[in-house]
Amino acid sequence: MAQSSPMIGGNGEYSYKNNSTLQRDGFTAAENVIKEAVVKNLDTEALVSSSTTFTIADLGCSVGPNTFVAMQTIIETVEQSLPEHSRSLEFQVLFNDQTANDFNTLFASLPQPRSYFAAAVPGSFYGRLFPSSSIHVAFSSSSLHWLSRVPPELQAKDSPAWNPGKIHYTGGAASDAVVKAYADQFEVDMEVFLKARGEEIVGGGLIIMIMPGVPDGVITHDVGIAITFLGCILMDMVAEGVLSQEKVDAFNVPHVYPSMKQMKRAVEKNGCFEIVKMEIRNARSNLEAPIDIDGAVMHLRALAQGTLVNHFGNVIVDQLFERAVHHKTKFSHMLFSAGIQIGAQLFAVLKRK
Amino acid sequence: MAQSSPMIGGNGEYSYKNNSTLQRDGFTAAENVIKEAVVKNLDTEALVSSSTTFTIADLGCSVGPNTFVAMQTIIETVEQSLPEHSRSLEFQVLFNDQTANDFNTLFASLPQPRSYFAAAVPGSFYGRLFPSSSIHVAFSSSSLHWLSRVPPELQAKDSPAWNPGKIHYTGGAASDAVVKAYADQFEVDMEVFLKARGEEIVGGGLIIMIMPGVPDGVITHDVGIAITFLGCILMDMVAEGVLSQEKVDAFNVPHVYPSMKQMKRAVEKNGCFEIVKMEIRNARSNLEAPIDIDGAVMHLRALAQGTLVNHFGNVIVDQLFERAVHHKTKFSHMLFSAGIQIGAQLFAVLKRK
Repeated sequence: MAQSSPMIGGNGEYSYKNNSTLQRDGFTAAENVIKEAVVKNLDTEALVSSSTTFTIADLGCSVGPNTFVAMQTIIETVEQSLPEHSRSLEFQVLFNDQTANDFNTLFASLPQPRSYFAAAVPGSFYGRLFPSSSIHVAFSSSSLHWLSRVPPELQAKDSPAWNPGKIHYTGGAASDAVVKAYADQFEVDMEVFLKARGEEIVGGGLIIMIMPGVPDGVITHDVGIAITFLGCILMDMVAEGVLSQEKVDAFNVPHVYPSMKQMKRAVEKNGCFEIVKMEIRNARSNLEAPIDIDGAVMHLRALAQGTLVNHFGNVIVDQLFERAVHHKTKFSHMLFSAGIQIGAQLFAVLKRK
Repeated sequence: MAQSSPMIGGNGEYSYKNNSTLQRDGFTAAENVIKEAVVKNLDTEALVSSSTTFTIADLGCSVGPNTFVAMQTIIETVEQSLPEHSRSLEFQVLFNDQTANDFNTLFASLPQPRSYFAAAVPGSFYGRLFPSSSIHVAFSSSSLHWLSRVPPELQAKDSPAWNPGKIHYTGGAASDAVVKAYADQFEVDMEVFLKARGEEIVGGGLIIMIMPGVPDGVITHDVGIAITFLGCILMDMVAEGVLSQEKVDAFNVPHVYPSMKQMKRAVEKNGCFEIVKMEIRNARSNLEAPIDIDGAVMHLRALAQGTLVNHFGNVIVDQLFERAVHHKTKFSHMLFSAGIQIGAQLFAVLKRK
């Protein structure tokens, strides 16, 4: 079963480190609203009186450098919003990602000097990671759209959610049962995620999340179109006899791009958090700006290679991305003809009650 | 300048992971006194009333598996010494080693399931690593004999502590100035170490340390003899023209095996800690037990390769250890003729005032 996989480590041509400018753009676009969220919603005066350490967790940090920029932004904002003459806080940043993430690369590129104590916490954020009431701000950028697993309904040939010839719920051709299976898995995962964070985050602490998201009633997102594009190439490889149909039929990418309605329902069901901000941000016309298709394909490789390699092996993935580069105008065409805005992000700030 | 270097990562033939049984033996020998130190000196009742999280740091953890055994032992001992009917504690283990340590291997071999939250903290323990008053027990096994650097007095040709043809202060042939330069560096390093730990450890918290140590008045330790043995082989390589004399003259291993007198002086100078236990343990006659020389050479390679490779490069180090295996009877002879007991450890328990 394809599971969510860490990004490509190290410093190589296809590494996440060298192919994560899209994620950084996502953060830069949200930088001001993040600052605003911290200033408006964090009662730093109360926090300073009860603790000398301010702890920030980055959930799904990958290997840097984006996480360092985000953490520094949050720290500076907290520092600036401290009451005058308050005793100084010490900051601690907990960099979290899956156990197989390349933490060695993360550590090698930690800013020097830095104004915080750094630690890495390995493990899935769909479960407990930190001691109770130990986190002041949990931040997550471009990570929460990874489900904990492919929805199990998609694994059985006789299931109504069997998804032959496709690798995701977006792209228009998936059945309602497939769409529902993904939505159900998202609901289960968010329940686990919010329960764990509810235990870990101090009263008054925040979750700040940025992830690909869609307006209510919309299903397709441009990240999903990129995945659909890869699915088409995989089917070309089936047609040419390079890959078996069964292999592709059994593969699905564990991504969900939720609507605000879905996210709100999850938060309300959990009950520990107040939604202090939620919006779909940054959506722009697919005609508005030139899209860097080469960059997008490289980005896709850094993003999806772990998941793809787990299922198909290295040789197939190399061929897949050679073809992706060759057929990039098709990707471009799919993006432009989808009739959706691109780059939409769900941005939310949740406050622990 | 040779600096202290992390152990060899990964799972290979020469890796620390597969060549650290001597360190484990060191821990096993000390296991009961560690348990006793925790039971006797930790006021768990006071700790439970002031915190729900009990945090243990392993300073110089390397890549496992020894650290997992040690951490589990401490956790179980704390749990058993909790007052009856006390609310349950959560445990957090902070695995510390230098930034270049192979934390990916450490994370891949973390026990599953485990009874603690795990995090890695990269950086030298000769400096601050953790927030103030955040650590209950700091543990360090087979690490504190690594200095932060080679004593600077050994770097200049015109210095009285220039140490030509030798690579350490032990082995009998080093000048008094060399011995003093090492002792001075140890004093400086322990001052920095204890100052940092004094800030990080909660009142009533402990430092538990195990390291190669010597009886008062003795200089040579069997780990030093192993280093002297490597020094002899390096000089053979100089004689054969494989290495330049200058290269060997400028190399020294940054290890000190302190006496109780040295360690006591450092602790008293710092002033933050009470010495609740200090002893030289585990020393045994060099005639008593057969020594596994092959194992010792492999162990030496895992231990010293980082330091050696930094100075001499990979090719020389491969040759060096081929020769070490070939001349292992010489090593054996040096060990037996040194007239010292072997395996001596300085064991100390310090309590934060």
